[in-house]
Amino acid sequence: MKRILVTGATGLIGRHCVPALLMRGYEVHGLVPPQESVAPGAEVVWHAGDLFDAAAVGQLVDDVRPSHLLHLAWITTPGLFWNSPENLRWVEASLALVRAFHAAGGRRVVMTGSCAEYDWDHGCCREGVTPLRPATLYGRAKHALHTLVEGLAGQAGMSAAWGRVFFLYGPQAHPARMPGCVIRALLAGEIAACTEGNQIRDFLHASDVGHALAALVDSAVEGPVNIASGEPVRLAEMVRMVAEIIGRPELVRLGALKTPAGEPPILVADVRRLKEEVGWTPRFDLKSGLTDTVSRWAKNSLRCAS
Amino acid sequence: MKRILVTGATGLIGRHCVPALLMRGYEVHGLVPPQESVAPGAEVVWHAGDLFDAAAVGQLVDDVRPSHLLHLAWITTPGLFWNSPENLRWVEASLALVRAFHAAGGRRVVMTGSCAEYDWDHGCCREGVTPLRPATLYGRAKHALHTLVEGLAGQAGMSAAWGRVFFLYGPQAHPARMPGCVIRALLAGEIAACTEGNQIRDFLHASDVGHALAALVDSAVEGPVNIASGEPVRLAEMVRMVAEIIGRPELVRLGALKTPAGEPPILVADVRRLKEEVGWTPRFDLKSGLTDTVSRWAKNSLRCAS
Repeated sequence: MKRILVTGATGLIGRHCVPALLMRGYEVHGLVPPQESVAPGAEVVWHAGDLFDAAAVGQLVDDVRPSHLLHLAWITTPGLFWNSPENLRWVEASLALVRAFHAAGGRRVVMTGSCAEYDWDHGCCREGVTPLRPATLYGRAKHALHTLVEGLAGQAGMSAAWGRVFFLYGPQAHPARMPGCVIRALLAGEIAACTEGNQIRDFLHASDVGHALAALVDSAVEGPVNIASGEPVRLAEMVRMVAEIIGRPELVRLGALKTPAGEPPILVADVRRLKEEVGWTPRFDLKSGLTDTVSRWAKNSLRCAS
Repeated sequence: MKRILVTGATGLIGRHCVPALLMRGYEVHGLVPPQESVAPGAEVVWHAGDLFDAAAVGQLVDDVRPSHLLHLAWITTPGLFWNSPENLRWVEASLALVRAFHAAGGRRVVMTGSCAEYDWDHGCCREGVTPLRPATLYGRAKHALHTLVEGLAGQAGMSAAWGRVFFLYGPQAHPARMPGCVIRALLAGEIAACTEGNQIRDFLHASDVGHALAALVDSAVEGPVNIASGEPVRLAEMVRMVAEIIGRPELVRLGALKTPAGEPPILVADVRRLKEEVGWTPRFDLKSGLTDTVSRWAKNSLRCAS
């Protein structure tokens, strides 16, 4: 019996994890904030709950008695989340959650970390090799939480994995982030002012991120696993792809904006663990993923405009 | 106005910090668990409070509005504390406390870490140089908390220091630990069965640990600072000193017990930060500290026996 509790189940990643977990035969219990409404569906058992209310979380976990836990919820407000003191509150909530899960007999926990845990002076990030030196409070919080969950799991005989998510994109990704900002501008017929875009990054479609995490949950792999494509791309190249898909290359202004200070030139993932140990490969390459993103984005815009 | 809130104020270290802080001109507010009784004194304002009740802690901090925070309370049950899941609960409580302190306008926070944060494959531990690779849940918890408090302080413009305590001894130290176990046996006229005692460690009298932490609070030094003597001693040598002070060397059996597996041969502290930056040196050397410990221990035993 595989019964999983998923926090942040309606979020950017969670909405893709849930169907992927159902396909893998899990009984899925989704936790959503009290103020959020979800479409009732026969397949998922939805629970409204406040992760900052440790007593209520303890009660819920005790009622559901999940064998698996996938904890995705976190502060994600663009700009703010990097250095908000709220990150500490999320560590507290996450620790209370994993303690409750363990106390209720939970067997395997997967949580999400970030490429922000690595020392960005090293361009290529490999689990267990690249030093961890988070430059932000968000990165510190994820690193600290990982240290503690791994330590608890080791002591308690629980299985634990830690998915380090790199850069993601998709129809529901925030329009202030790359490549959403470019897609939005070009679809509106506006100039897309960009930096030179020389930075090299690893992007993965949000749907693939969700499926990769579901595969990680369903595996026996423990410890940190990079959740990324393993296909480095220069930002300028991604912008050009978007412009080609939309058919408005003349609106792109590479170099119109100054590259922010402190941006590492290369920040990419070694994905050997994900590929060889978890046995997972992405469904989308960057071209097809961006095409999917643009077409859904255009549909959503039409729907909003009508 | 220097007003400090001290948690664990009646503990092994806290009881020595409080008078040292009073001498330095602090208005001292001591927090003790609800079930614990303290001798009322005009000099210290005592508060009974449960650190696991975040709402009550928030209220207390808001009422006291301390400029300084010295957080010493933690699980210390011998044997148990190394790997108890309670360590995670202490991280949660400590984060809630420091967030409340910051929200109430707190200016400087000092917390205590441990030599258990360092990678013990490196015998000599130096702040910012020796890698951190805690082998226990306790060490992970302290390391994670430090990462988060340092990150919060950096973002919030708060001053923060982190005292890494090594090995301590003293009249009130637990009799199951070195050198208490030897002192107890020899004072009772019993055989003291010991390991070979080839391990080299750094011991500091609990009173000196308290005074060092008070000096750290009262300085502007930030980041991790080893709280130790800087005088490595072989355990066998310490046992011989104790036997000489008590006058019963014939009762000591070095080598009667097997040295536990995994004990690092050398685990000592580099104390340059404490000495040169904080400007603090110990009052006791090992000989005088052990003499003090034995004489008070003997007095306490007499008092108990009468």
